[in-house]
Order: sequence, then structure tokens, then C-alpha cells
Amino acid sequence: MTAGNQEEQIELLTSTDDDHGGVIVEMDEPMDSTTFVPILKASLSHWKQQGKRGLWVKVPIHLVNLVEDLVKEGFWYHHAEPKYLMLVHWIAETVNTIPANATHRVGVGALVSNEKGEILVVQEKTGHFQGTGYWKFPTGVVDEGEDISAAVVREVKEETGIDSEFVEVLAFRQSHKTFFEKSDLLFVCLLRPLTFDIKIQEVEIADAKWMPFDEYAAQAWIEKYELMKYVNEIYLAKIDGRYSGLTPVSTTSQASDQISYLYLNAGGLKRCNSL
Amino acid sequence: MTAGNQEEQIELLTSTDDDHGGVIVEMDEPMDSTTFVPILKASLSHWKQQGKRGLWVKVPIHLVNLVEDLVKEGFWYHHAEPKYLMLVHWIAETVNTIPANATHRVGVGALVSNEKGEILVVQEKTGHFQGTGYWKFPTGVVDEGEDISAAVVREVKEETGIDSEFVEVLAFRQSHKTFFEKSDLLFVCLLRPLTFDIKIQEVEIADAKWMPFDEYAAQAWIEKYELMKYVNEIYLAKIDGRYSGLTPVSTTSQASDQISYLYLNAGGLKRCNSL
Repeated sequence: MTAGNQEEQIELLTSTDDDHGGVIVEMDEPMDSTTFVPILKASLSHWKQQGKRGLWVKVPIHLVNLVEDLVKEGFWYHHAEPKYLMLVHWIAETVNTIPANATHRVGVGALVSNEKGEILVVQEKTGHFQGTGYWKFPTGVVDEGEDISAAVVREVKEETGIDSEFVEVLAFRQSHKTFFEKSDLLFVCLLRPLTFDIKIQEVEIADAKWMPFDEYAAQAWIEKYELMKYVNEIYLAKIDGRYSGLTPVSTTSQASDQISYLYLNAGGLKRCNSL
Repeated sequence: MTAGNQEEQIELLTSTDDDHGGVIVEMDEPMDSTTFVPILKASLSHWKQQGKRGLWVKVPIHLVNLVEDLVKEGFWYHHAEPKYLMLVHWIAETVNTIPANATHRVGVGALVSNEKGEILVVQEKTGHFQGTGYWKFPTGVVDEGEDISAAVVREVKEETGIDSEFVEVLAFRQSHKTFFEKSDLLFVCLLRPLTFDIKIQEVEIADAKWMPFDEYAAQAWIEKYELMKYVNEIYLAKIDGRYSGLTPVSTTSQASDQISYLYLNAGGLKRCNSL
């Protein structure tokens, strides 16, 4: 309250420390520039004195008016999702060690194979194959925070109504610039059906059925896609017992209590254990 | 120039059509809100009349002043990189089919194994293991647009000066919420060294050496990480010839002239071809 304390009277942004000598601010209260800019400048000066390095400010889209002020103070974009923008600023003298943004979307393809030598195929209402009459195996995109093995089971259920269990990742493909500058990873998975009655999802799927694998593989369009030809070869080797993909094992570490799946060739290790 | 032509006189944003019934605008000229908003409104009305669906506007960071105007007209964030923000708006009556943003960062770990039964290990100057004295195999992040097989060779070269060639992906791990809401995919790769003299990268690496695998595997810290224990088991199975990972084959399709790598268990297919 005294003149000597004046500096301490300036309000600072509420922040939490991260594990790398930086701070994270989550904006939530509406504010105009005349209020925000002095608080931001005081906070920057405070963090600099504290020896902070990376500064993160998450701005929900309804506070878009604050973005320009942050950029004028030296922040730049790190990543964005529909409802927020994450900005970052490196205020240390040392080399910027701000981690890169996510670079890949992750997709899954499902070979759901029954005991009659048939696979589950669909015709899509949207996308590249829309209206072509091509029968293809179900594919989809892994949601944020979703395991690959769960995503592929979910996609099959959503598109066709079939319950299935995950067997293994047969192969994966990395492709670039599939969406602006971003890359894609597509995991082709083998699944075992648990139910057999198809119920199609009307929005995305025009038709679905169990199709003899030979008939599926003989479609002319597949000749144009080396990926599809390899997948066919892999599938035939698999049902002959000559091919091993990667299966998930859950792993934890003392450093974090999160469970993560490691996908490995379990056959190779099993033979190891039996020696 | 006449009153009857007045509507046509309104300037529209320069756009290109995408392949999904939408348009893409790349802003480049500085503009203030009073100029921009009428042009934006006229463009929106024009695209709506044309039956366009998804609208993309890429705003470089120096034009940050336009972001608020776009949000007020119904745009939301799709993704951001340091120098730009991509906004999107769905103006069709149909279900929004805007594709999701990238969800995963992709990392690589390198088991570089020489013929003496040693692997290449480093001590890092930053990150979790900084100052611990733990010897670990080199790891790094895949750059935007970079192949996994190229990224791991580059990381080994950068950190240790060792030239190497990619052999295979031994296993991969998917983990969640590693960085805000984003997920990680870590590909553990086997590499064959082509050179042997180590030259460490001073910024990130405190030390590097060739270490007998048994000595590496016996480090106490590894016991805390199930991932590391599995990788050790995989490595031992691999050098015994009992384990197959996934190797890249290049694939193309008539639908695109891009080359993409498909990672598959080539051993399983080779046995197939020799039948």
C-alpha cells in the first residue's frame, strides 16, 4: 500500500511451473487490451527475473482478442485445436528447447478375417472411393489419446456393427504432406471378429459385407495401389502361418504411472523364453 | 462501374479450390479490419452461393490482427505452426467433415550395434536423464516430412558423429498426454554402424561411447523402465536370429506420385516368395 511496495501491487498472470524451467498460463477471464497488456508486461518481467525459460499461454477462442497482444510481446504460435490457441515465448539466453508440435495424424486399417476365408469390406459414402463401387477394408482416424488397438476395434464397430478383437499390427505406412504440411501414419491391423451380423453406419458407409478374400484381392483398383498389393501378400502369408506382425504389451515405468503399449514381435520373444 | 454492377465491384479474397468442395485462402497482404471485414463477408456470401463447404484461411503471424475478425465471422482454429495459424469454417448444411489435426509427435530410438557386441550410448545434457550419469541409446524427434528410417540415422549422426544404415523397426510404443493433450509414437530401430569414431554434439550430449551390451543392460535405472527391459530382450533375441522387426519397402500408387514407405516383416514375405 506504500509507495515502496508499488511494484508488488501490479497484478501478475496466474501461472503454474512446468518441469523444464518454464511457466504455463491458462487464460480464462475476458479482458481487454488496456487491462491485459500491462499485466502481461509485468508478468514477463517477473518471469525473466525468476530465470524462467519457456513461457506457454493457452488462449481459449473466446479470448481471441488477446492473441495480437501476445504476439506483439514476442509470443509465437505453438499449436491450436478448435477451441484454443497455444502460444509460446522463449525468454532465456540459452538455445530454445521448445518441443516441436505434433506432426502426424494416425490412421488405422482393419483386416477383419473370419474362419470362412472372408474379410469384412465396406463401400464409403465420402472420400476418395466415394461412388466407385470399390470394396475396401474399414479405415479410420485414431482419436486424440486413443490407443491404436482400441481405435481400430472402434472403427470396425462404428462402420459395420461388428464386434472384434485386436490381433496385431501387420504393417504400417508413413506418408508425407497428406494434409497441408502434416504426415500420416497408417497402421494396418488384423482383427478377429466376435460377431458376424453387419449393421452399417448410414452417414459414412454405403454398404458392407463379408467378401471372400480372393474376390476382394482380385478387384482391379487394387492393382493401382502397391500398398494394397503388399497388404494382400501379407494377409496370405499370415493365414499360412508364415508372417508375424507386432502385438501390444502394456508397459509402465517408475517415472510415470501411465500405461503405454509397446508393439513388438511377441513370437520372437516367446521362442526366446522357451529356450 | 454502373450502379447495376455495384455488387460485382466488391473485392473478394483470392482463393483456390480444394479437392473436397472447399476453398483455401492464404492471406499475405497487410490489411486493417475496416478493409478486411467487408471483403471477408462478401467472400463468405459468394462461397455460400457457390455451394462451397469447408473454408480454410491461413494467416501468417504478422497478420495476427485479422484472426479476431475471422473468429467473429464463425471461423475456428484448425492448427498452428510457429509462423502461421490455419482457421477453418464449415458453411454447408451437411455434417462437418473437416479432418482432424495432427495428434502425434513421432520419436525414434537407435540401437546401433557393432560386431563386438557393443552398442552406441550417450549421456544427455538436457531432459529427464540430465546429470544422472545414465547411459542410454540415442533418441530424437522426427522432423516434419521426414521418414522414420532417415530420422534415426540423422539423429545418430548429429549426436555422435557416427554414420549408420537403417536395418529395421524393432518395436514401437504409443504413449498419451506426453505433451499437453498430444500423444507420442516412439519407434525403436536397429542400425548398423558404418563408421566407429565418435564425435559428440556439444550442445545436447555430455558424453558418448561404445559400451558392451551386457554392461549397458545391467544399469540399475533400466530396471525402472519396462520399455527398456523389453528392448533389451528384443535385442538379445535379434542378435540370436530369433526376432524379426519391420523393414521399409517403398510404395507408390497411381492416385498420387508420392513415394511412401510401408514397414513390414520382410522375412515372412520372403519365405512366401521362395515357396
